[in-house]
Amino acid sequence: MQIVIPLFPKFTALDGIGPYEVLQRIPSIDVTFIGHQRGEIRSENGFLGITADGTFDDFPRPDVIVFPGGVGTRPLEHDDRVLDWVRGAHETTTFTTSVCTGSLVLGAAGLLTGLTATTHWSCYPELEAHGALPTAQRVVEHLDRRIITAAGVSSGIDMALRLVELLVDRTAAEAAQWMIEYDPQPPFQCGSTANATANASAGGDALTQRVIEYAQLRQ
Amino acid sequence: MQIVIPLFPKFTALDGIGPYEVLQRIPSIDVTFIGHQRGEIRSENGFLGITADGTFDDFPRPDVIVFPGGVGTRPLEHDDRVLDWVRGAHETTTFTTSVCTGSLVLGAAGLLTGLTATTHWSCYPELEAHGALPTAQRVVEHLDRRIITAAGVSSGIDMALRLVELLVDRTAAEAAQWMIEYDPQPPFQCGSTANATANASAGGDALTQRVIEYAQLRQ
Repeated sequence: MQIVIPLFPKFTALDGIGPYEVLQRIPSIDVTFIGHQRGEIRSENGFLGITADGTFDDFPRPDVIVFPGGVGTRPLEHDDRVLDWVRGAHETTTFTTSVCTGSLVLGAAGLLTGLTATTHWSCYPELEAHGALPTAQRVVEHLDRRIITAAGVSSGIDMALRLVELLVDRTAAEAAQWMIEYDPQPPFQCGSTANATANASAGGDALTQRVIEYAQLRQ
Repeated sequence: MQIVIPLFPKFTALDGIGPYEVLQRIPSIDVTFIGHQRGEIRSENGFLGITADGTFDDFPRPDVIVFPGGVGTRPLEHDDRVLDWVRGAHETTTFTTSVCTGSLVLGAAGLLTGLTATTHWSCYPELEAHGALPTAQRVVEHLDRRIITAAGVSSGIDMALRLVELLVDRTAAEAAQWMIEYDPQPPFQCGSTANATANASAGGDALTQRVIEYAQLRQ
């Protein structure tokens, strides 16, 4: 089974590496990072380079797509080579999935029209502009359409465990979860907009200001 | 503030990328992946290449070390260049930290003698052999010694959030958590040995067999 994870300049690393770390543990699954060209592609802040080992053209018929997000998805929403690839590949995938703003690319390709879907909490309007119905769930499944979208960044880990259950079986997913010791114990309760509003130690406005400041400086 | 994440052949990607994704969002922090040489280094199964942008020699005095794990830590436990670097750098770090079997390298360098510490659940005997006192906590802090060890693979995300609180403040950590939408909702309860034993759908023995099978095939 061939799973591909597209890379592009200014990707968000954990969007792709979270699912990768779960999926690569299953012996029947091969995971390949792909891009427009082979070679190193840098993350959104430039701190990290990951190698694309194949191109979109090399993998016209993957079994599963996991499309990660990052500020670098914006140009992809107008990149016909990528959108044509998504549309063509989706015809025969077992599942076409996204993490974070990867769903904006699936949306731009026309895959999410009229469907509930999710993305990073800051991008619901952009998702809606592609005809999707944004929803603040961590993972949104449309198994009849073979489409699964996950929320921001870290949500891809949860999605990938579910994907392993769907692709192999529940024991495989549980084995992967145990191997990556995924027994999350966040030290704060601030990982969703609802939680952030309720639990931020400095108050929601101070937190929002900090997030805006950080986002501007790191893109 | 300079944080370094060492890479080596057969690293476990999420061990490093989990903390990276949290830490890189803080404007006052620079994160650099380092290795014996600059250039691409491949993960344990070979599916993923990450670029080392600097060498150990380039960063003799980092502010923070986050040492990831993977089967590739085994040779490092006997690699005097790495162990000397760890010992030297630790003299002046603000924090010296590890994820997963990264603690075996800290242990081999003599940093954990007589201290409680953690590692991947499968490696407590190896950690004990370095004079540490293995403990099944997700994150073990010794702030007086400036040492923090985290459990297997995904635990580095939890550790990094705590690290941001220690290095900057709680609001910074909460902002990072919200930005990566870290509101974990694992679909199964199988992420620790205690949970796996209690909750595996197929029974603990079947799960253990699957884990052994998967571990053998992917290293």
